[in-house]
Parts: sequence; C-alpha cells; structure tokens
Amino acid sequence: MPTITAFASSPDEGQGHARDMRVRWAFEEVGQPYDVELRSFEALKQLEHLCLNPFGSIPTYEEGPLVLFESGSIVLHIADRHRGLLPDDPDGRARAITWMFAALNTVEPPIVEWEAFMLLEKDAAWFHDRLPLLEENIRARLGRLSDYLGEREWLDGRFSAADLLMVTVLRRLEPSNFPGSHNIVEQFPNLSSYVERGKSRPAYKRAFGAQLAVFRAAQR
Amino acid sequence: MPTITAFASSPDEGQGHARDMRVRWAFEEVGQPYDVELRSFEALKQLEHLCLNPFGSIPTYEEGPLVLFESGSIVLHIADRHRGLLPDDPDGRARAITWMFAALNTVEPPIVEWEAFMLLEKDAAWFHDRLPLLEENIRARLGRLSDYLGEREWLDGRFSAADLLMVTVLRRLEPSNFPGSHNIVEQFPNLSSYVERGKSRPAYKRAFGAQLAVFRAAQR
Repeated sequence: MPTITAFASSPDEGQGHARDMRVRWAFEEVGQPYDVELRSFEALKQLEHLCLNPFGSIPTYEEGPLVLFESGSIVLHIADRHRGLLPDDPDGRARAITWMFAALNTVEPPIVEWEAFMLLEKDAAWFHDRLPLLEENIRARLGRLSDYLGEREWLDGRFSAADLLMVTVLRRLEPSNFPGSHNIVEQFPNLSSYVERGKSRPAYKRAFGAQLAVFRAAQR
Repeated sequence: MPTITAFASSPDEGQGHARDMRVRWAFEEVGQPYDVELRSFEALKQLEHLCLNPFGSIPTYEEGPLVLFESGSIVLHIADRHRGLLPDDPDGRARAITWMFAALNTVEPPIVEWEAFMLLEKDAAWFHDRLPLLEENIRARLGRLSDYLGEREWLDGRFSAADLLMVTVLRRLEPSNFPGSHNIVEQFPNLSSYVERGKSRPAYKRAFGAQLAVFRAAQR
C-alpha cells in the first residue's frame, strides 16, 4: 500500500489547502487505499524527511523502493497506474497533462504569490499599494481560464486529473483562507460553479474528511 | 512534422530564456525535426492563437489534430514519444517526472516572481526594501537543490527531461538577463557546473542557435 506524508497539524486548520489533499483526492477517485505518515514542522527539516523530498515539503509518496514528491507528479503517477483520472486515448491523455501543467504553472503561481504576500507582508508599508497588482495578475489568468471554460463541465471532456488539480488551485482563493478578503473566483460565475462541481464529488468529500480528521485529532 | 510557436522577436533578445527554447532543446535531444510559426505580441492575444493556448503564451505544439501548450507538458510529450529523455524503467521514469515538476513548481516560481519584480517594479518606492526578500526565497530553494545535487552529474542518473527543464530554469538567473545583477546560482558552485554541463550539450547548442537566428533575422 502506498504511503504519503502530510502535516501533523495543517496550518490551514483542516480546510484542505495543504497539498496532500490533491493526492488523497486522486487515491479516492481511483479507489486506492493509502497510508499517511504525519510530520511536524521540525521533522520536515530533518534528514529523514529531506531524503524523501530535498525541499522539505509534503506530500511525499513511497511504494516499495519508489519515492516521489511534488503533488502534481504524484497525482500523475496515480493516474498512470489506475484507470479513471486520464483519458485512454493518447491525444486526450496528452491534453489532460497539458491542463495539469497549466493548473500548476500558469494559474497557481500568482495565487501562491498573493497568499505569501497576505501572510508575510501584511504589515509592510507597501502592502496596500501592492495588493491590487497581485489581485490583477490573478484576475487576468482567471479571465482567460473562464473564457476557455465557457459552459464546459470539465476542462476537456470527462473529469480528469487536470480538473482535480485546477479545482484545488482555485480553492486557494476561498475567503476562509483569509477572513475578510473577497474571493476573486466569484467574479467568474462559471469558475465558481466548476469549483463547486469538483467539491461535490464523493471522492473529494472523502479526501476532505480524511485530512480534516487529522487536524481535529491534533487539536485534542 | 510537429509545429511549435515562438516569439517573432523575443523580449530577451535571443538569450534563449523564452520557453520555446525548452521544446527546441527536447526536439534536438531526440532528433525530431520541427517547424516553427512566429508570433508577434499582438497575434498572441488574437483568437487564432488563443484557440491553441487560452492563456495567450508560447510555445504551443501542433501535430495533426493534437494541440498542446505549457512547455513542461510539451517536453513530457516529446519524451514519451521518443527514447532518450526519460529512463525506460517505470520507477526511474516516475522519479524523472517528479524532478520535472520540481523544476517548474518549486524552483521556477520564486525566480519568475523576482524577474517580474525586476522588470515591473524597479521604480517603485519599495523596490530596494523588497528585493532582498525575493533573493532570499530563491537562495533558499537553490540551497536545497545544491545540497541534494552534491557531486551528482545529473539529477537522477543519466541526463533526462528533468535536467533539461532545471537547467533552463536556473539559466533565468544569468546576469545577462538583468545587467548589473549578480547571479545567485554562482553562490552554489555545483549548480553553476551543472548548468554549464547542460549548456555544453550539442543538442542545447543547436537549439540555442536556432532561437538566436530567429531574433537576428527579426533585427534585419
């Protein structure tokens, strides 16, 4: 059975924004049971963990002698080993992988930059002057994504690993993450509906519940 | 023969930092001829191009009815269709793909953030106060990468698509990109040597020459 690593106490307090959520969701979609090893923040910087992931982050993936990291790579690996997360035809598979990279390399970076800014520079003199620039970067990318999505249910035909990643990326903008902020996704109704479609999948709900249970257990 | 798109006149003036360089290099490594369609900046925002890439960037990849975008996805597609860019054994292949994602999702984002800051905020009141934060983010990631690489020649065994991407990502820090800036990579001698090993490959040189020829022709 594969083993992944996750935060012992997630900094998002069980909202499912840590990147083990993506891997849990992928396992649930394909019906693959998995084990989880929890890591304290201190443990992430220790050699035992750095031997699994040299950058000291979660999740990692172990199955026998195979060790992987990077949530996108782990989701792709699960999708390659099981049916259900990538189309069977080679061209459809290649297009879904294009959208996996688009989620992680084109849509996510300005969101992560905004998140880090909100957390680490909120007391800086330039906070209020810079914030609109970062929001506009996100809005520009989401506008392109919304234009493309139109009335499609999923990015390209049936639900795939690309939708799984894109939904988790867009969820990072939920205001629960930063109380009082507005959710830029809501300016694009088709993207809001798309995120909700993802969150209503039974596999998503099982994965969300599993990571929330870890956080709640840590609070006891 | 596959067709890719590239800038008609690259903003880096032929230094090979535009993302078609990655795809050209991959084609050269596997010996696959390709066609290039050049795009003006205006053309990138027109529907003809947005139908290939909804985010309006280069490169795109067309082969018969198949259309792909995202340089990482295109390099992976080329590596899947030809021998030479990914190990044959499944575990080695999965590890190389992990490193492809690490190059694009863990190492490149702080570099792109720094690049955009250097270009777009150099006259802002906060420029000199914020710049060290961005450089420290890059240094932290490169420190982890350097610790991992140690005396390895390539990231994991033989040269792979992961090294191809990682070298192009690290090259973005070359001071030619921002005259007068120091190159953070040079603080890590094993990373400097690694980048030079990549640049000395015949396939790299052919790809670099091809993109430089496009820029020079545009200057005439």
